[in-house]
Order: sequence, then C-alpha cells, then structure tokens
Amino acid sequence: MSRLVEITDVILRDAHQSLIATRMAMEDMIPACEDLDNAGYWSLECWGGATFDSCIRFLNEDPWERLRTFKKLLPKTRTQMLLRGQNLLGYRHYEDTVVDRFVEKAAENGMDVFRVFDALNDPRNLTRAIAAVKRTGKHAQGTICYTISPVHSTQTFIDMAKTLVDMGVDSICIKDMAALLKPQPAYDIVKGIKESVGQDVLVHVHVHSTTGVTLVSLMKAIEAGADIVDTSVSAMSLGPGHNPTESLIEMLEGTPYHTKVNLDLVYKVRDHFNKIKPRYQEFMSEVTTVETEIFKSQIPGGMLSNMESQLKQQGQGDKMKEVLLEVPRVRAAAGNVPLVTPSSQIVGTQAVFNVMMGPYQVMTGEFADLVLGYYGKTATVPDPDVVAKAKESAKKEPIDVRPADKLEPEWEKLDSAAKALEGHNGSVEDTLTYAMFPQIAPKFFKSRPDGPLNLGKDPSSFAAVSADPNSPGYLAAPIQYEVKLGDKKMQVTVGPVGGGQ
Amino acid sequence: MSRLVEITDVILRDAHQSLIATRMAMEDMIPACEDLDNAGYWSLECWGGATFDSCIRFLNEDPWERLRTFKKLLPKTRTQMLLRGQNLLGYRHYEDTVVDRFVEKAAENGMDVFRVFDALNDPRNLTRAIAAVKRTGKHAQGTICYTISPVHSTQTFIDMAKTLVDMGVDSICIKDMAALLKPQPAYDIVKGIKESVGQDVLVHVHVHSTTGVTLVSLMKAIEAGADIVDTSVSAMSLGPGHNPTESLIEMLEGTPYHTKVNLDLVYKVRDHFNKIKPRYQEFMSEVTTVETEIFKSQIPGGMLSNMESQLKQQGQGDKMKEVLLEVPRVRAAAGNVPLVTPSSQIVGTQAVFNVMMGPYQVMTGEFADLVLGYYGKTATVPDPDVVAKAKESAKKEPIDVRPADKLEPEWEKLDSAAKALEGHNGSVEDTLTYAMFPQIAPKFFKSRPDGPLNLGKDPSSFAAVSADPNSPGYLAAPIQYEVKLGDKKMQVTVGPVGGGQ
Repeated sequence: MSRLVEITDVILRDAHQSLIATRMAMEDMIPACEDLDNAGYWSLECWGGATFDSCIRFLNEDPWERLRTFKKLLPKTRTQMLLRGQNLLGYRHYEDTVVDRFVEKAAENGMDVFRVFDALNDPRNLTRAIAAVKRTGKHAQGTICYTISPVHSTQTFIDMAKTLVDMGVDSICIKDMAALLKPQPAYDIVKGIKESVGQDVLVHVHVHSTTGVTLVSLMKAIEAGADIVDTSVSAMSLGPGHNPTESLIEMLEGTPYHTKVNLDLVYKVRDHFNKIKPRYQEFMSEVTTVETEIFKSQIPGGMLSNMESQLKQQGQGDKMKEVLLEVPRVRAAAGNVPLVTPSSQIVGTQAVFNVMMGPYQVMTGEFADLVLGYYGKTATVPDPDVVAKAKESAKKEPIDVRPADKLEPEWEKLDSAAKALEGHNGSVEDTLTYAMFPQIAPKFFKSRPDGPLNLGKDPSSFAAVSADPNSPGYLAAPIQYEVKLGDKKMQVTVGPVGGGQ
Repeated sequence: MSRLVEITDVILRDAHQSLIATRMAMEDMIPACEDLDNAGYWSLECWGGATFDSCIRFLNEDPWERLRTFKKLLPKTRTQMLLRGQNLLGYRHYEDTVVDRFVEKAAENGMDVFRVFDALNDPRNLTRAIAAVKRTGKHAQGTICYTISPVHSTQTFIDMAKTLVDMGVDSICIKDMAALLKPQPAYDIVKGIKESVGQDVLVHVHVHSTTGVTLVSLMKAIEAGADIVDTSVSAMSLGPGHNPTESLIEMLEGTPYHTKVNLDLVYKVRDHFNKIKPRYQEFMSEVTTVETEIFKSQIPGGMLSNMESQLKQQGQGDKMKEVLLEVPRVRAAAGNVPLVTPSSQIVGTQAVFNVMMGPYQVMTGEFADLVLGYYGKTATVPDPDVVAKAKESAKKEPIDVRPADKLEPEWEKLDSAAKALEGHNGSVEDTLTYAMFPQIAPKFFKSRPDGPLNLGKDPSSFAAVSADPNSPGYLAAPIQYEVKLGDKKMQVTVGPVGGGQ
C-alpha cells in the first residue's frame, strides 16, 4: 500500500521572499493561480511572513486585498500563511486583543491555515494566536523552529511537539529556515514526534535548500511518517529557496509513497514563472550553488555578510575570524537561542561589538532585552554575569513572565491613531496594518489610491541603467561605438561617466 | 558500527566537462591538486571523457602531459579516467591492438582506475579494454549505463553486473549521466547487485544532478550498500553537473555511514574554483535550476535543443510536438538503446527526419549503422522493417558479431601515418592521439610547441566585447555617456552600431 504524501507549495510567498526579496507583484502571480489551484496541493502558502511588510513598503499594495484576491482565485485549495506568534507580522510583541483581532480578520478575509511560530520557540508566545485561530474554526499549525546547539536534541523537539498538541493545534510544523535539518535528525524527530503524540497528528516539514541536503531530509522525514512537505515550483527554487516541487514528486516514484499533485499543471506554472523571473533580476539572490559552512559556523549567510560589512565600516575587516569564534560564545551566554531573524542579527551584532570593544563593554538594547527575557524564554538560562551587565546597561529588570503580559491594552489607542491618518478606510484591517507598521502605514494609506506597483523590469532595460560592475550594461573598459552628432557619424571610444580604466 | 563510504571527486574532469564544456585550463586546476590529494578521496577523476578531445582541439595541450602532471601532483590518491570501451576516447571502434596499446600507455603515464563503459551496454565492446587494464595490474571498473525504457528493469542491470564480474572487473559502476536514477531504483539495483554478485564486489555510483533527485538516490544507494559515490566540490556542481561533495558529506552525519574526506580541505578547493569560475562565463551552462521533464520525454536537454534547431533551420519549428512523440517510437524501433551520446543524437535526428519527410523515407548513415549492429548489440532486436530499409539505404548487411571483429589490424598504418606528420614526437602516445583524432591531431602536433592555452578571461572583459543581447555590455536601448573628443567633454546618447531598439 502506497501512502499519500501531501504538498504545500510556497511559490506565492516564501519562494519569492527567499529568492527576490519578497518583491513579486500580485499581477505576476495571478496568471498562475488557476493551475496552482487545480494541481492538487494540500495548501498554497501565499501570505504572511514578509509579504505584508513588502506590500505596503515597496509595492503600494493593500495586503488585505491581496489575501481576498488569492482566496477568490484559489477556491479549491487551502490558503496558508506564516504568522510570527505574538509578533503577528510586525517586529514587536502585541497585546493579546490585537492578536485576536488580527487572526479574526485574516480568517474572515480568506486565510485557512495559520502556521504560527516564535523565533525563541517559547510556547507562551504562541498560545494566544493559536487559541484565536481555533476560535475561528480555521487550521492552527503549531511550529517548531529547528536549530542546532549543544542543548538542542531530538528530545527537545519532541517535547515541544507535545506542548503544541496540548495547546490543541491541528498539526505540527518543523520549520528549518536555515537548511540545517539533516536526513538522520529529520527521521528521528518526525518518528519521535509521531510515536510521542500519536500517528494521527499531522506532521508538516518545511525546509530551505541552502545547504543542498534537505531534499534527502524530506525523503527521510517521509519515511518516518511526515504527512505534508513544503516545496516550490522549480522556476523559483533552490539556493536560499526551497526544493523543487517537480523533483519531490519524481523522487517518490516507485517508493511506498506518492503525491497527488499534477505534474503537467506544475510545468505550466513553472513556464509562467520562468518567463516572469528575469524581470526581477535586480532583487535576485546571487547564490547559485550550495552553502554548507553554516553547519560549521552555525551562522546563516545573511548574518555573515551583515557582520562583515559592520566590521569593514569600522575599518576592522581583519577581525572576522575572531568574530566567528565569538558568536557561539555570545549565543551560549544568551541562552542558546535559535539563530534566526531577529535573534541571529542580535547575537551577530553583539559578537561584533564584543570583538571591537571588549566583551559586553557596549551592549545593544536588543541584546539586553534578549537576555533580560523581553523576547521570551531562551532555551537555557542566560549567563548571570551577562544578565547583570544587561540590567545595568539597559536600566531594566529581567522578566520571567510572558512578555505580552507586560503590555497594556492598546487597541483603542492604535485604532484612534490609525483613523486619524489620511486615507484610513475606516476598517479594522487598516488599523491592524497601522499597528504592525506605524512608520510606513501613513504613507501607504495616502498613496494607496494610485494602485499597486510592479517592480519587475523589462530585462533589456537593465542594460541602460545599471552602473553595477556585475550587471549588463556596465562598461568595464572603454568601447568603440558609432555615434551620430547631428548629421555626422563618428567612431568614438566611450567609457562610463567618471570611470573607465 | 558506522560504515565508511568512499568518495570520488570529479571536479578535475566531468564537472567542468558538464558545466563549462571541458574548457578548464590545466593551470587553473594545478593549484587545487595538493588539497584534493590530501583530502582523503578514494579517487580523483581527472582524465578521459571529452578532456582528451578538448585538450588538442581547444587548449593546445598534450593530454598525455596532463596525465603525467596529475600523477605527479596527486601522489596519495588514485587517478581515475572514463574510457569509452572499444571507442577509447574517440568516436569509432578501434581494432583490439590499438585498445591494448592505449590502455598500456595510459597506465604507464599514471592512470590508476579505468572506468570502462559502452553507450549500448554491449559487454562485447568492453571485454578487450577490461582485459587490457587487468594485464597492467590497474583497477578495471566495469560500467552499467543506466537508462529507462519499457524493456529495462532492475533485473537487466543486475544481469549486466553479473556479466561484468564474470569478466573479472575490480568494481562495478552504475553510471547515470542523464540524472534519471531515482531513489527507489537506486536502492533496488545496488541491493540486487550486491545480493547477486556478493557483498565484496565494490559498487560505485555516478549520478548527475540535472533532475534534482539524485542526492536522494545516492543516499538510498548507500543504504543499499554502495561503497563509493561520485560528487564534485560545490564550486563546480549542480545543474547538469554533479551533487556537491560538501552536501554529501554533511548529509551522512548521524547516519550509520561516514566519509573520510576532510571538509576543511574541500572548502579550500571550493574557494579556489569559485575564484576561477567567472573566467569561464562564456562556456557556462545556463541551467540554474532543475530539469525534470526528461523523466516524461526521456529526451536529454541537449538533445532537445539540437532537435529544435534542426527543425527551425527547416522552417518547421511547429513540428516539435510531433517529434517528441516520434522519439520513443524511433527508439523502440532501434532496439531500445540508452539515449546517451551518441545514440541520443542518432535517434533524435532520425525522429526529426521521420516527421519532416515521412517515416524512414530518409535515413541517416548513423541510424542505419545503429539498427544494422555496427555500434553493437541493442537492448532488444530492432524492428525488422526498419532494418530492411536500413540495408537498402546504407547498402550494408546487418552484423551480429562484435563490431571490432570486422576491423583489420590497423596499428602499423596509423603509426606510419602519424609519424609522417610534422611535430609527431616519435612516441606511441602521439600515434594514439592521432588514431583518436586524425582530423585535429596534425594541427595540434604543429602548434604544440606554443604551449597550452588558457581560454578563461578576465570577467570584466566580457562587457567590452559582446554583442549578444543576453550578455553584459550589450546596449538594448540608447544610453547617455560622457564622451571626450580631443579636449571637449560632451554628454552624448549612444546606441549599438546599426542597432537601437
């Protein structure tokens, strides 16, 4: 008997978030929706994560309208979103009734599956959002962020799965955004979870492809009983993105597992995005092969380049090796937090400061908040000496309650501030948009009537505008052209303005 | 107990053959040799395949000298080559004593492991070369070309493995140049071979990464008992190339298998080739993601684009769909040959002819030879009607003996013809070079004293020379530059010569 393995395609959200900085215009996704909807996916991830931010910051597009459009265009398939627990889609903790309202409105506008995660894996940052999803009758997926550290073991993740099931989640997601999940741990964790919480609890595995090993991990996760896996249509796959949907489907042929996704429709979707993709060249990730050093350094590639540029700005580019050795120490001192956004930036920046100015001589506000408990509970207790310095530096006391418990009710204030803005349409949705992005919502409300932007460009136009040495159109050396000045034709040697060799 | 899995790295041969058309200059490989040699590989594939052809055709480099250099620079690790059985490294069958001499000289100049294959999997095309390797005391690896067809089953490949073991090979290679080997067949075939010929016979698995599934296939092959696998350092990997060495090593962590390859040295090799790679931009394969339609069409990507351009040249570009349907019919009629070079081109071209001019109205000489047995025995008996037409078209009788049995002794003739050429150095090696490439050897012998070429280019130079719309430096639209004419500076609008929009 062959067992059905379901697929969630992330091409409408995480794929373009990972590969072209979340810049895909809605009008470039719409033509693929019918085929995607008919292909037989368990769900289509299409909202949340950074899409909300990108919509109002870059695309002049109402994210709520995007959600309603997807719902209309995907009538047969579950829509799915990524929700940052108590952070919603913003970058701070929100008071509980804001969380409730956001979830209600997302469900009302068309969201079916809520993948809820917390960067610290602190279940207290998930409870309110999960309860809110349950109340709407929609699917609440509790998420475990996968990480590797001296204190994280298979049992750690199994225990978290139990906690999530006790919260009443409809399924469990193992989320591996850094492509750290190797085949054997994938097998052990999925098997352990199934044995511990029951074979009937759906286990959904989300991996990125950065390190090149994770399609194998999906195979082992499936062998261990995983019910649903995340992939992306090949046109937008690999590198820091995800494993290709087509490869996953083909991989299972002849095994005791099968999918029900229609490959011919997947090929149609692929052809569409292959046509669109060159228009987003300027946003494209430059990684074309695998990046495996993260297994050694534990440091995601994006964090590495951040740290390098911080050091170089200070004229200390030669200190990179010291910083690489400092990161694990800082991470341990901070309580072995997963190194994902935002904890990766917080730990990385503090490591840079420690190397440049001596250990914890200067502490960022964010790092102090992290060790003082303001982001939530860390995997282990932070180093008491570092906590003491954080208290002094931030003039704050450590907390051990759920961070959101420290927040005052804030809805009324947010609502009246939002409604005072030019262009607010009077809806709860608009107030939620303002709540999450108070800096950019005012500008967006004003410019919204102009309609959504498409930042994609005719690939040939890059030749005419670019001054980047890696781009077409760039002249590294002088070059001969035929130039007309009035009626005269001349052969002239031409170089870039102010440049050339 | 963890079992050791050995690795062959193909970065010095098949990787650059697959990714940059075999153009890598020896001087760009030399700096990586010490680290490769110390890394702990089972072998380093570094010669054979298309490298011999490329050396004398494009690089003005003596391939025998390349072999001696590798042997000197890789003292601790087995050198390995790919040998086309009775074809050696050329494109026709050679008489047996030529085969013997080639193998002797390759061994004498430093070759340790001979991977011997035949495109039709006809064992009679392998026997002589394998016997010759055995006489030198070197490692003879018998190769099974993996393919998918209605008549190929797991048992087919197991039977061939038995035949190879009976010939006395030291190991068996499963060679999957089209990335068709899925995980389950990989497992079944390796397991079947081990059970059938004994666990002690080394099984070596070679896969390309084109379809995106084959790292999973390597995992399953290892679980089934594979002893050695082929990978390539990540800098030259993926696409039509191979799975990254780093990913394979990391993939095994925590499993009952391990490698002994030193990752830190692999990273040094990677850094070297990452630096070199941009110099070969103009030869680079454009595939950056996976290509899975070959599973459906059975047609390798290179063959597809060949057929499309053949049709377009005839103004029949709209016939592609018919041709795609014709290919499996032609392949079946030809006896279910594996679709690899040269059989893929032969079958593809005949399919194009059939669609344009009616079935077998015009037959290529190569297709006639194929169905008449001049390449060897096909998997099944070719269609008798097609054979009859081939006899008529080629004015030849079918043969069922080993093709090389029809050849007269040819060494003396080759040797005197070669020695008559300007620049022949009097060696057996030079005569072998001439024997394999009689058209290009004369020119090469003459220009050899000029020394090897490096076709790599400063990446910035591409901008100044290209007129290809897809390349840097191309101006799709007029653009403003600052131009100096004598002492005058002007802002001028410039476009490509004779071009514009």
